[in-house]
Amino acid sequence: MEQLKKYIRSVPDFPKPGINFYDVTTLFQNPVGFNLALDGMEEYVRSRKADKIVAIEARGFILGAALADRLNIGLVPARKPGKLPWRTITEEYSLEYGTDRLQMHADAVQPGERVVIVDDLIATGGTLGAACKLVEQLGGKVVGISSVIGLNFLPYRQRLAGYDLHHLIAYDSE
Amino acid sequence: MEQLKKYIRSVPDFPKPGINFYDVTTLFQNPVGFNLALDGMEEYVRSRKADKIVAIEARGFILGAALADRLNIGLVPARKPGKLPWRTITEEYSLEYGTDRLQMHADAVQPGERVVIVDDLIATGGTLGAACKLVEQLGGKVVGISSVIGLNFLPYRQRLAGYDLHHLIAYDSE
Repeated sequence: MEQLKKYIRSVPDFPKPGINFYDVTTLFQNPVGFNLALDGMEEYVRSRKADKIVAIEARGFILGAALADRLNIGLVPARKPGKLPWRTITEEYSLEYGTDRLQMHADAVQPGERVVIVDDLIATGGTLGAACKLVEQLGGKVVGISSVIGLNFLPYRQRLAGYDLHHLIAYDSE
Repeated sequence: MEQLKKYIRSVPDFPKPGINFYDVTTLFQNPVGFNLALDGMEEYVRSRKADKIVAIEARGFILGAALADRLNIGLVPARKPGKLPWRTITEEYSLEYGTDRLQMHADAVQPGERVVIVDDLIATGGTLGAACKLVEQLGGKVVGISSVIGLNFLPYRQRLAGYDLHHLIAYDSE
């Protein structure tokens, strides 16, 4: 899957100076690259026998939706506060400075359902950890976390210990 | 397509009192409903011979991504200001009170490309109109606008005059 890297644009100093941002929009707008990434993630989600995909706002929606369609399973959005219209459950998680929150609809996952959580990137694991807790609040079982990119220089493995982690490509330094 | 309505949840007083919100998360989390909606939109996008899909943040990403995958064409996100990392173009549009802006990457559409714009809902047409202008700024041709829902009691037809409009179901009153 190393060939996926040629579809990903590296943008220096975004969202702030010193951060190198891996831009997957160039992957999504290229049908060859997009298909390659989806093939790799589809194989993983199938192997985990998932009943449902939870996708993280907003780039995770793009990957999660196409995967849910390929596997003919349901797609659940995990969103920033105030975006979901019906009854929600909430998890707070810590950022470098301060905290943030993630929400899911209270009927989005049924007890016992096997869920794979999908995002474009695994970085610190904060948002993904909150998504795991949301699924577990509703009695679902998180059977995997799948992404295009893993930032292996960040300590997400500690934060997501005990979960099955999957990414297609990794970057080992900023 | 009237049977799609049973998968859509009506939430009164969201995001503010007096507004009835059509919640498509119940459609997305049901694989039968999601597949039915995608089949209908896929048929339309195919008939327009689109080269690319532009999807509106954030629910439009879910529909647009699955459609781009089905048709094996590129997917471009149109996003709220400050979300896209690389060089962007911007369009401002008016809301009931004030204005908002929509952005796209400057290399997202090539001159002459046939683009269908995808969102979950056509309401006032403000965001969709801005997305059309973004595509046209880059020399693309907007060959259609496709959504699950059309709110026919709102005056979107004036705002989007001249564009080919498609929705699967309509609501005629709030």
